[in-house]
Amino acid sequence: MVSKSQIKLITSLAQKKYRQQHGLFVVEGLKGISEFLESNFNLQSLFALEGCFKDERPTEVTAAELKKISFLKTPQKALALFEIPEDLNKVEAGFQLVLDDVRDPGNLGTLIRLCDWYGIKNLICSKETVDCFNPKVVQATMGSLTRVNLIYTDLSHHLAAQDLPVYAAFMDGKSVYKEGLPQDAILILGNEANGISDVVAENIQHKISIPQFGQSTTESLNVAVAGAILVSEFKRN
Amino acid sequence: MVSKSQIKLITSLAQKKYRQQHGLFVVEGLKGISEFLESNFNLQSLFALEGCFKDERPTEVTAAELKKISFLKTPQKALALFEIPEDLNKVEAGFQLVLDDVRDPGNLGTLIRLCDWYGIKNLICSKETVDCFNPKVVQATMGSLTRVNLIYTDLSHHLAAQDLPVYAAFMDGKSVYKEGLPQDAILILGNEANGISDVVAENIQHKISIPQFGQSTTESLNVAVAGAILVSEFKRN
Repeated sequence: MVSKSQIKLITSLAQKKYRQQHGLFVVEGLKGISEFLESNFNLQSLFALEGCFKDERPTEVTAAELKKISFLKTPQKALALFEIPEDLNKVEAGFQLVLDDVRDPGNLGTLIRLCDWYGIKNLICSKETVDCFNPKVVQATMGSLTRVNLIYTDLSHHLAAQDLPVYAAFMDGKSVYKEGLPQDAILILGNEANGISDVVAENIQHKISIPQFGQSTTESLNVAVAGAILVSEFKRN
Repeated sequence: MVSKSQIKLITSLAQKKYRQQHGLFVVEGLKGISEFLESNFNLQSLFALEGCFKDERPTEVTAAELKKISFLKTPQKALALFEIPEDLNKVEAGFQLVLDDVRDPGNLGTLIRLCDWYGIKNLICSKETVDCFNPKVVQATMGSLTRVNLIYTDLSHHLAAQDLPVYAAFMDGKSVYKEGLPQDAILILGNEANGISDVVAENIQHKISIPQFGQSTTESLNVAVAGAILVSEFKRN
């Protein structure tokens, strides 16, 4: 049974200001919730159809009730609220992927999965980058959010304090296939429409590019796709 | 001015059966429409705010009218209907990217852009793969749809008739970073949830994998991201 006030709380968590006010975010689906339960995140409440997550003593709900609280077109069997951790994440040694205003939740979710796959611990985001606790981002990460260290910060300040070489993709950069790339570096990806901002670009030492094999009219690759190809090039050696 | 019957026609084109019935699909935005105008696609009608596409003599519409016919949350300045070409595309020589039931419109759009960037002419799709004239796919392709040759067909029949070596990604495949890859090949990508179907898998000669650098609990990469990394490996040499 879900109360009216619980429905109101949960649906409010679509918005960042209410996630921040309540310190909570939503995870849906058995697999996603299991990954968060096994991680350092703290469970606040759990709603599930009969027979799911018995050990966790969930609030049992009907499919109709689940539909009222779910953010998905096709609700999964369970929905959980987890606490947003208060501790600020610290930058770990090693490769850093830096996002300068990536706005699309699907792109951020995909990039979090990419970091998880390639063992990249540090995903540094500008403050205007979409919030990682946005329900669409959480859904797109498939649990990878539990294993990647996201830090929202002022990129100019952050980059000025780092020792690693700083790379970013530009149309006129050197071919990434011909550059000798270091194992550890900082790689910056820009906004979907506007690319990398001028103030962040001042910190870039190495301009690289993904060579274009097709017609020159092709404008660009999706930011998550470009990020994947570039990260792969750094990690393949 | 947009008539009621035009609104009804345009909104119906969200569904594949009406696109097929009318032989039409929707393109939105100045840049996208310009790319289709410059291609071999035939324009059927064009709706635009005052001052846009004067040479094409568009039906002039107000922002409120555009909102009624647009599929976008934030409508662009123009919306066009183009004819779905009747000619069946033919497979050209060279690399083939094959999609076995990719269902997400954003993923297909991103993969079409990837093919365009890397000059891959042939994108062969199973009949269950999302329709490339779906408005969300057209929007995600950013005009690349005008330059990539999409063919919807029975994959088993198609693959049986090809001479190129057939590759696909599997968890237990050989590292793609260590394989000597040919310039021309067939690369198969599977469904987002279920991977490659058994009947298609029978045609695969080379199982490859993207090595996992992170924890083994990481389940998978997004299909467009995996496709990008693999295509990059084929094309980088």
